Amino acid sequence: MTALIYCPFPDAACAERIGRVLVEEGLIACINIGGPIRAIFSWDGAIGEGEEIPGLLKTSAAKLDHAVARLEQLHPYDSPAILGWRCEAAGAATREWLGAL
Amino acid sequence: MTALIYCPFPDAACAERIGRVLVEEGLIACINIGGPIRAIFSWDGAIGEGEEIPGLLKTSAAKLDHAVARLEQLHPYDSPAILGWRCEAAGAATREWLGAL
Amino acid sequence: MTALIYCPFPDAACAERIGRVLVEEGLIACINIGGPIRAIFSWDGAIGEGEEIPGLLKTSAAKLDHAVARLEQLHPYDSPAILGWRCEAAGAATREWLGAL
Repeated sequence: MTALIYCPFPDAACAERIGRVLVEEGLIACINIGGPIRAIFSWDGAIGEGEEIPGLLKTSAAKLDHAVARLEQLHPYDSPAILGWRCEAAGAATREWLGAL
Repeated sequence: MTALIYCPFPDAACAERIGRVLVEEGLIACINIGGPIRAIFSWDGAIGEGEEIPGLLKTSAAKLDHAVARLEQLHPYDSPAILGWRCEAAGAATREWLGAL
Repeated sequence: MTALIYCPFPDAACAERIGRVLVEEGLIACINIGGPIRAIFSWDGAIGEGEEIPGLLKTSAAKLDHAVARLEQLHPYDSPAILGWRCEAAGAATREWLGAL
């Protein structure tokens, strides 16, 4: 089964650098890096705001936990937001591509 | 467990205003607001088009249903598109952050 | 139950054309087409890069497999990335809209 991971990064260079490490390590097959997003969030009892760069990472369900843990290790934030989920219905080519990880 | 909610808004000011209410009410920990998207959709037997602003909201699985219901109440559309799903594989910091909601 | 499908396209015109076919065929109710994303990926033992246009497609869990298969058929890539997942927590209007597909 395939899976996706969503994670915002402080900037595009950071997303690209970390995404490339995860691809090289065989923990993901691909990162898609989007344009700037605005974040409004609660933290330590206050409301904060900021600008980030979103990343969507494609992996297999088998590698999902490992990819999330390694991403958390590589990420520059103390408490990065990293959310991963299984995708029950991938295309045949996608299943083959991600299943080979 | 953590969860995500996807919801398009008519504009960024609306996404920010509603996201802030949900953060203040403790139903989500964060909203990420993206750049403009184009929508092509079926409605009442016809095909429509429009431009919207996407929001991705981070919450816990425990608050997911409540957050979706409250978002639907706050949203200016009669029939907003709101889709939420559980994320089995969040990072440790993310699980702690969203689990404290 | 509702569902989402994530799929990158080579350009916006292609995303719009294929999204419209899927809406007309009743396999999805909507496609949201975003601004450019950067992709870094592994393919055939090498690391590639490119720019794509992301699409997020809304459907029902009942139509999910069919929509993914048809999208793969229509997509211009030999091996498109298509990942679909069920969304347990949609709003009432969204459940009604997507349930009518």
